[in-house]
Amino acid sequence: MSMNTFGHLFRVTTWGESHGPALGATVDGCPPGVAVDEAMLQHWLDRRKPGQNRYTTQRREPDAVRILSGVFEGQTTGTPVQLMIENTDQRSKDYGDIAEKFRPGHADITYWQKYGIRDYRGGGRSSARETAARVAAGGLARAALAALAPGLEITGYMVQMGPHAIDRSRLDLAQVGENAFWCPDAETAETWANYLDDLRKSGDSVGAVIEVVARGVPAGLGAPVYGKLDTDLAAAAMSINAVKAVEIGEGMAAAALRGSENADEITMGPNGPEYSSNHAGGILGGISTGQDVVLRFAVKPTSSILTPRRTITKSGEETEIVTKGRHDPCVGIRAVPVGEAMVACVLLDHLLLHRGQVGENRGKIG
Amino acid sequence: MSMNTFGHLFRVTTWGESHGPALGATVDGCPPGVAVDEAMLQHWLDRRKPGQNRYTTQRREPDAVRILSGVFEGQTTGTPVQLMIENTDQRSKDYGDIAEKFRPGHADITYWQKYGIRDYRGGGRSSARETAARVAAGGLARAALAALAPGLEITGYMVQMGPHAIDRSRLDLAQVGENAFWCPDAETAETWANYLDDLRKSGDSVGAVIEVVARGVPAGLGAPVYGKLDTDLAAAAMSINAVKAVEIGEGMAAAALRGSENADEITMGPNGPEYSSNHAGGILGGISTGQDVVLRFAVKPTSSILTPRRTITKSGEETEIVTKGRHDPCVGIRAVPVGEAMVACVLLDHLLLHRGQVGENRGKIG
Amino acid sequence: MSMNTFGHLFRVTTWGESHGPALGATVDGCPPGVAVDEAMLQHWLDRRKPGQNRYTTQRREPDAVRILSGVFEGQTTGTPVQLMIENTDQRSKDYGDIAEKFRPGHADITYWQKYGIRDYRGGGRSSARETAARVAAGGLARAALAALAPGLEITGYMVQMGPHAIDRSRLDLAQVGENAFWCPDAETAETWANYLDDLRKSGDSVGAVIEVVARGVPAGLGAPVYGKLDTDLAAAAMSINAVKAVEIGEGMAAAALRGSENADEITMGPNGPEYSSNHAGGILGGISTGQDVVLRFAVKPTSSILTPRRTITKSGEETEIVTKGRHDPCVGIRAVPVGEAMVACVLLDHLLLHRGQVGENRGKIG
Amino acid sequence: MSMNTFGHLFRVTTWGESHGPALGATVDGCPPGVAVDEAMLQHWLDRRKPGQNRYTTQRREPDAVRILSGVFEGQTTGTPVQLMIENTDQRSKDYGDIAEKFRPGHADITYWQKYGIRDYRGGGRSSARETAARVAAGGLARAALAALAPGLEITGYMVQMGPHAIDRSRLDLAQVGENAFWCPDAETAETWANYLDDLRKSGDSVGAVIEVVARGVPAGLGAPVYGKLDTDLAAAAMSINAVKAVEIGEGMAAAALRGSENADEITMGPNGPEYSSNHAGGILGGISTGQDVVLRFAVKPTSSILTPRRTITKSGEETEIVTKGRHDPCVGIRAVPVGEAMVACVLLDHLLLHRGQVGENRGKIG
Repeated sequence: MSMNTFGHLFRVTTWGESHGPALGATVDGCPPGVAVDEAMLQHWLDRRKPGQNRYTTQRREPDAVRILSGVFEGQTTGTPVQLMIENTDQRSKDYGDIAEKFRPGHADITYWQKYGIRDYRGGGRSSARETAARVAAGGLARAALAALAPGLEITGYMVQMGPHAIDRSRLDLAQVGENAFWCPDAETAETWANYLDDLRKSGDSVGAVIEVVARGVPAGLGAPVYGKLDTDLAAAAMSINAVKAVEIGEGMAAAALRGSENADEITMGPNGPEYSSNHAGGILGGISTGQDVVLRFAVKPTSSILTPRRTITKSGEETEIVTKGRHDPCVGIRAVPVGEAMVACVLLDHLLLHRGQVGENRGKIG
Repeated sequence: MSMNTFGHLFRVTTWGESHGPALGATVDGCPPGVAVDEAMLQHWLDRRKPGQNRYTTQRREPDAVRILSGVFEGQTTGTPVQLMIENTDQRSKDYGDIAEKFRPGHADITYWQKYGIRDYRGGGRSSARETAARVAAGGLARAALAALAPGLEITGYMVQMGPHAIDRSRLDLAQVGENAFWCPDAETAETWANYLDDLRKSGDSVGAVIEVVARGVPAGLGAPVYGKLDTDLAAAAMSINAVKAVEIGEGMAAAALRGSENADEITMGPNGPEYSSNHAGGILGGISTGQDVVLRFAVKPTSSILTPRRTITKSGEETEIVTKGRHDPCVGIRAVPVGEAMVACVLLDHLLLHRGQVGENRGKIG
Repeated sequence: MSMNTFGHLFRVTTWGESHGPALGATVDGCPPGVAVDEAMLQHWLDRRKPGQNRYTTQRREPDAVRILSGVFEGQTTGTPVQLMIENTDQRSKDYGDIAEKFRPGHADITYWQKYGIRDYRGGGRSSARETAARVAAGGLARAALAALAPGLEITGYMVQMGPHAIDRSRLDLAQVGENAFWCPDAETAETWANYLDDLRKSGDSVGAVIEVVARGVPAGLGAPVYGKLDTDLAAAAMSINAVKAVEIGEGMAAAALRGSENADEITMGPNGPEYSSNHAGGILGGISTGQDVVLRFAVKPTSSILTPRRTITKSGEETEIVTKGRHDPCVGIRAVPVGEAMVACVLLDHLLLHRGQVGENRGKIG
Repeated sequence: MSMNTFGHLFRVTTWGESHGPALGATVDGCPPGVAVDEAMLQHWLDRRKPGQNRYTTQRREPDAVRILSGVFEGQTTGTPVQLMIENTDQRSKDYGDIAEKFRPGHADITYWQKYGIRDYRGGGRSSARETAARVAAGGLARAALAALAPGLEITGYMVQMGPHAIDRSRLDLAQVGENAFWCPDAETAETWANYLDDLRKSGDSVGAVIEVVARGVPAGLGAPVYGKLDTDLAAAAMSINAVKAVEIGEGMAAAALRGSENADEITMGPNGPEYSSNHAGGILGGISTGQDVVLRFAVKPTSSILTPRRTITKSGEETEIVTKGRHDPCVGIRAVPVGEAMVACVLLDHLLLHRGQVGENRGKIG
């Protein structure tokens, strides 16, 4: 895992800028014989696509993915899969002002300081448009998982928007696709709708918490001590734009628990070990237990807002900036499919790693 | 970064088990000419050493580190540095009972399921003893940072134990070394002492939150999009035993903020850009801003407790377990020097990566 | 260096098949601020381009390279550079026969056995068309080297075709561009022309030896013991299609030498150490000496020939095959620019690695 | 594969210097459940051990290997295996003279230029003593291969010493252990004995060619296009001290062949494909065919000789040097077990990689 590449055996390298001709993912290490076509990948991209409702940016991008290599006659060949998405909505506009000013909360200033390059066209490489490539790669990972780990399901949803968290007693995954927020709680979805409408009118933005759950993950995935499953999930989530925190299972709340509360007791069920609870989030010692793998991450509010903020220019002059344009008031919404995609990539990667080093699980119980 | 290796250019591979003959770190990629000797590394190990007060495990290990390679006449040579710590307190005892039972909350069951091996001697590779090797490697990283980034300081401390958080208005780094808990708030340190005494008597344990702050980090460290500085810090922290959550800057709380609150405004100071606040935790777009880098992580309560817990045996029979022995009621205490060590390794690694790809910062301001 | 990626800090991942829609190279880790445009890369691709004379395949491919990312306003940004070459001459033809038979000497049978996929369209991923992507990436490496190591020059040429080697006493690099074979010896070039004409008429093919020399390589590049400069050059050369042997400096002939003959004596020149000879090929202990780096590799004869050869089908039946089509009688010719490209990539990579770990050369002489 | 680490899934990191306290190999990624103990590894080290006859250095090292981690109750656990060899014969001597002079043909000058460190004690990290660690790791790889690929056999032998090559018509592997040179041809072994006696008396040294053959390698190992089996074998061989050339199958001689001679014809045997010849050395398109994998490499003559050679000092003064001490007149002899060890590591690594990405061979024939 280095720089623009993610993964050990299933390696995803994303490339491309917000306003360049195209962006994409070069995926190396995909198993051969996986049935996949562009429509299957497009399904996942369409979920992330901007401009679908009034709560996400009105930038219009079809985000049509093309498979340029690695698939032959409907199956992966085992060689690199190139997934390309052309940028079509490169609306010509006057960047003159923004080109000189650093947008607070954005990577403008750090990219400039490091690279001496200011790609003012929508943030260039640091734009969240890069996550489209991740979703495409995640679609490929899901296709491979369907073959290698049937029954494994990955579902993401939002559990908090700004100050408003869902009511866990109402959590119903069937609701996730029924609203604009991937909200598993219909009542809270309405609260969010009203809240976000107000926020959008005021030109402000807000953060969110996303949860991704993977069911049917085989026990035994992950490896000590820096290739732990939770280590890679944490890296995967933290690498998503605007993410500032990552939790596994109990997360931050584990700090307040006693050992007698936190350790999930083990009993023997008809199909193997069962657990009295899942504080661990499905991972012990970096290795999956077979329980649900539970990942949560916090997304900060979009930094592009209509409220004027103080900043400086490249030449060091103090000034103010208002970021007009097409921005999501809550980028957390579109981070949901991205989180799912990253989890899919990590799980496939660890499944291949486990198969490579170990073959099949070696320790039987009972 | 894969399996037991951490880092890109400064690569730390730890090895060894809790009760084997030795453990250590093989460090590849250390710059040459770094002044270092065993005493300098021992300084950091002594801070982590168990048995120093009544709040940590009474296992007696001198944790004496030996440098077996890569240092000649008091300087690193640029070749691999082998840091070895012999295990001396391998108290012979009857593991018979534990060897068959899986301790809840520990990696016993997952290691068994994956590898078919049950190293019952204190958890084997999954034991927190592995972190001694990290602290040794972190000492080497600090020595290199002293030469390459003078003024860079890394300080860890505990900010929450169980339900008791520090009062940030009393935070005073001078207090950190004055109590048994790395607590920067003298009053809270007393609360914790009483709390932990009670807890220990009841045979229970508790979680904690650790914060590590790096001051004087040059702007420009980190790289898009999977080699971000925060991505690697998140991975580094999550790879530490018992860690369940990682935060950068505002962390989980960012979810509840509005954009107008969260984006740190930029002004021009005498030595370059200054920021009105540090919600970002010193990192924008994965690259350091020059502000303090702020990392926090939550450690779950020790799973080894005296309260009987339900579990199963290798042969699948249900039973109960009480984990006697020498255990920390709050492993978070000893995680503080480990967190510091990981931050040192990550920062050195990114400093070398930056120098390799970019040389020096290319974008001047003002 | 793993699978379809080459390099440590300057990482080139090639993708694409012979008859897919496109192929290319995803280049991560290029330094920022390198002046480059499509025309500069096209220059190198044109040297490799097929169909330029009667000695290379008549497949007509413009091999036009597009830069899809990582370059902004004429400079690299430090983010991934995507180089894409569309396949235009995908002549529709009846592959029916070839699709069932394995061509001897080709990867048809091994790809089938491993992956269970038979991309019969010109060899798919195993086709030498993949090397076009390497040449594009090599062009980018050259552009970066021009900035980072001015004076460094990389020149490849052919030193043997079939039984006919050049006469080293006539070696003249000015001749390299004056004939169809990159031959540095005008007289031998004529011999080769006649020899190859005969060979082509007989429907046969022949092997070759290519030499690549890099002048002006700074001392100090390379690292023990698996990241040696010669280790990476050997890997780079051996990864080129049809290569069966790699030599550094004296190469195989070193086996017949005595120590008193082989060790290059060192004297002190006005600008530093000088050597009485260069048996070492510019590399000692895996690290460059500052002398010319000399790499040679042998390319086997094209396996696609008109002479009928025995083979089997996927269903295991014995049969014969004649490989018609557009093939190079001596693929070694087109391997020359590929060898240069690989050397450029390796040298840039090691230059960045050296800068990352060491900074500047630390040991002064005199 | 980077710096001091070799391999993708089976990763060997060697560490240690010629005259430091110890050296060794940190092996990560070994499959669990491999039966191994110190005696099994010692067997291979004893074959490489110096001082066994009058043709190798008289340095007396027991080269006793200790397993410090990763093995429990006689089986690998799947966690890092630390193999340590203590240096015992660190004969104290006056290095004063050598400490200032660079030995021609050695890495003294390049290590100095790069790192600014001169470990004059026998070459430090660049000493061939490092290969003891490789042999230990190779022993572990062999133990794993015995379980995963029963029937796979790796045999190395010398085929040329100085000007004297073996007579292939007399090649008899049963002879390999019967002489001091791993020579598979009894008659040539005698020639070498006389030749080397003369050479030793004259204080000179000579080069050699080693061949390593792996029988019973399953078809399907290796991966395009930079993770080819021959790419990794070339890197493995070239990384061995003093190696200047690597050949696969026909090697350099392939350059002189015609396509009609070189392509191995395929027929159908009772157990699958058979080949009329093995010019390919068991590898097509970077993937094993199931035939013998044939690797050859040339070792240059020892640079430490009694003949005075011109050189310079650190301060740039011209001088002469005679390298006294305990040196092998033909280091090629001891390179034989090293070559075998590297082949074992590469094959195991690719076996795990294949299992990880592909599982089992997917394409059936017949």
